[in-house]
Amino acid sequence: MINYGDVVTFMTIAIICVNKDPMPWYEALKAVDPTLNVQIWKDDDPPSDAEFALCWNHPAGVLQNFPKLKCICSMGAGIDHFLADSLLPKGVPLVRIVDPALAHSMFEYLHAAVMRFVQNFDHYMREQSQSFWCQRRASTKAATTVGLMGLGHLGEYAARRFFDDGFKVLGWSRSEKSLDGVETFCGAQSLDDFLSQTDILICLLPLTPETENILDLATFRKLPIGASVINVARGAHLVDADLITALDEGHLNGACLDVFREEPLPSTHRFWGHSRILVTPHCSSLSDPFSVTPQVVQNYRIMQSNGQLLNQVDPMRGY
Amino acid sequence: MINYGDVVTFMTIAIICVNKDPMPWYEALKAVDPTLNVQIWKDDDPPSDAEFALCWNHPAGVLQNFPKLKCICSMGAGIDHFLADSLLPKGVPLVRIVDPALAHSMFEYLHAAVMRFVQNFDHYMREQSQSFWCQRRASTKAATTVGLMGLGHLGEYAARRFFDDGFKVLGWSRSEKSLDGVETFCGAQSLDDFLSQTDILICLLPLTPETENILDLATFRKLPIGASVINVARGAHLVDADLITALDEGHLNGACLDVFREEPLPSTHRFWGHSRILVTPHCSSLSDPFSVTPQVVQNYRIMQSNGQLLNQVDPMRGY
Repeated sequence: MINYGDVVTFMTIAIICVNKDPMPWYEALKAVDPTLNVQIWKDDDPPSDAEFALCWNHPAGVLQNFPKLKCICSMGAGIDHFLADSLLPKGVPLVRIVDPALAHSMFEYLHAAVMRFVQNFDHYMREQSQSFWCQRRASTKAATTVGLMGLGHLGEYAARRFFDDGFKVLGWSRSEKSLDGVETFCGAQSLDDFLSQTDILICLLPLTPETENILDLATFRKLPIGASVINVARGAHLVDADLITALDEGHLNGACLDVFREEPLPSTHRFWGHSRILVTPHCSSLSDPFSVTPQVVQNYRIMQSNGQLLNQVDPMRGY
Repeated sequence: MINYGDVVTFMTIAIICVNKDPMPWYEALKAVDPTLNVQIWKDDDPPSDAEFALCWNHPAGVLQNFPKLKCICSMGAGIDHFLADSLLPKGVPLVRIVDPALAHSMFEYLHAAVMRFVQNFDHYMREQSQSFWCQRRASTKAATTVGLMGLGHLGEYAARRFFDDGFKVLGWSRSEKSLDGVETFCGAQSLDDFLSQTDILICLLPLTPETENILDLATFRKLPIGASVINVARGAHLVDADLITALDEGHLNGACLDVFREEPLPSTHRFWGHSRILVTPHCSSLSDPFSVTPQVVQNYRIMQSNGQLLNQVDPMRGY
């Protein structure tokens, strides 16, 4: 409750999420500041006077019912759910969560996924179903080149950690980046060079019109034969049928997918039954609400004081 | 060829191995010193005058056919194949390979196996076969306690590396050890305490009468519910039926097994078809002959000059 002279205003944070339980977020916000007025949005709610909206997969157009909005905050690193909404209120700043714990937990997922390929556990798992005993000499971290597409916060953290753990690391991004120990490539003209040297390709790109469908057959065929692909960015980066073609023709060794065009992945989707694909249920980037709500509350307070918001995103760039 | 006065003696290294291709070892020895006289043992060979035997799974009694033996060298870290041979020539020193590359490649296998459990990939793989989408919050390295049984060369290296990578690490060994960052336990009386705090148990023990069958139901039930087990030591450490009981009763989450009582694992063995066991074909400790034969040749030369052999083992201790 803030007292501006004689006007008493209750500031409200609205939680708007679909396919995600809002309660842990509600509780985490209240744990940071029990005096916060937090509203959980429901389908049939009347227009709200909330000034701050914490969103995940909000239904397109619903933010029109928040005429006093001063800030829209993503519950995660991605903001493509905002960009997909043509009725997003104009001029309201967008911010996202930059969660150091998230970058680390994402890296731990990627580390496990990469090590699984390096140690041939994907082969052994398939061969186990045939009771087939066949020793393969594992590769090593030092002999494995991890190629990261996307060197934003998550990509840069992962690149540094893979390098620290003894891998060869390449990074590709739209704008030029420099990272100790990581050979970086910039822009469309260097993509082929990057791909040709990559054993395990990791997609951590933002989803934009330029990056949509970037994981297609042409891209896969530029990787060395026997390369593997990990997608933890967005399902729309990947052309599903092209991945299956590249695996079945033997160009790619395997894939580990955590994101899909439709989530949950429909039970009839071919990925479920493909022996060279590991499907995980968008678990690589689960933020712990208790670890990130202090940042949400901080931005909420900055908004109240009309300061410079943290982690604001540029909707024109898409990240 | 060594010239002792007027007597010219051809020194010979015999390679005696079963279920392993001797040729890479032959070529690696020749690469170190093309003048070496290297003999590959065959079933129907007459007695040999070789003074140095490089062995893996040699048939019991066969070393009786080498009356001039001065040194018996294991092709790996383990020497249980020697101890199982009651007709081993008495008084001939036993040496083994201590391969720094092996300790590292063993760690890389263990790292992948541990990360697979931490990230629930074992669950997701099972659920994938049912097209079942169910997010689980992964554990983290920092919240995972890796318990190493055996703190010899391989165990100590792995303990240090797991600690460096951010895991909590416990170590249990027969004789007292001290390792920075690792809580160590010593002897039978501290085993229960060690087990009760271990989330992922790794067996790297030497195989001795005391450690045979140590991975039994009583041991498993002392681990926390939901713990997982990795065996990379010897198949005889594990009571096969007890592992299946502990998994099926829900006490253990999963197992990753690289060693078995009979190898290759017989195609009818229940481990192959168990959904909570990953079977790998004794691939965690494949020495590269080219990386270790310089050490073999060094011991061969020390033997020639009657010096102090490297990495000699005490057959009474078993390691």
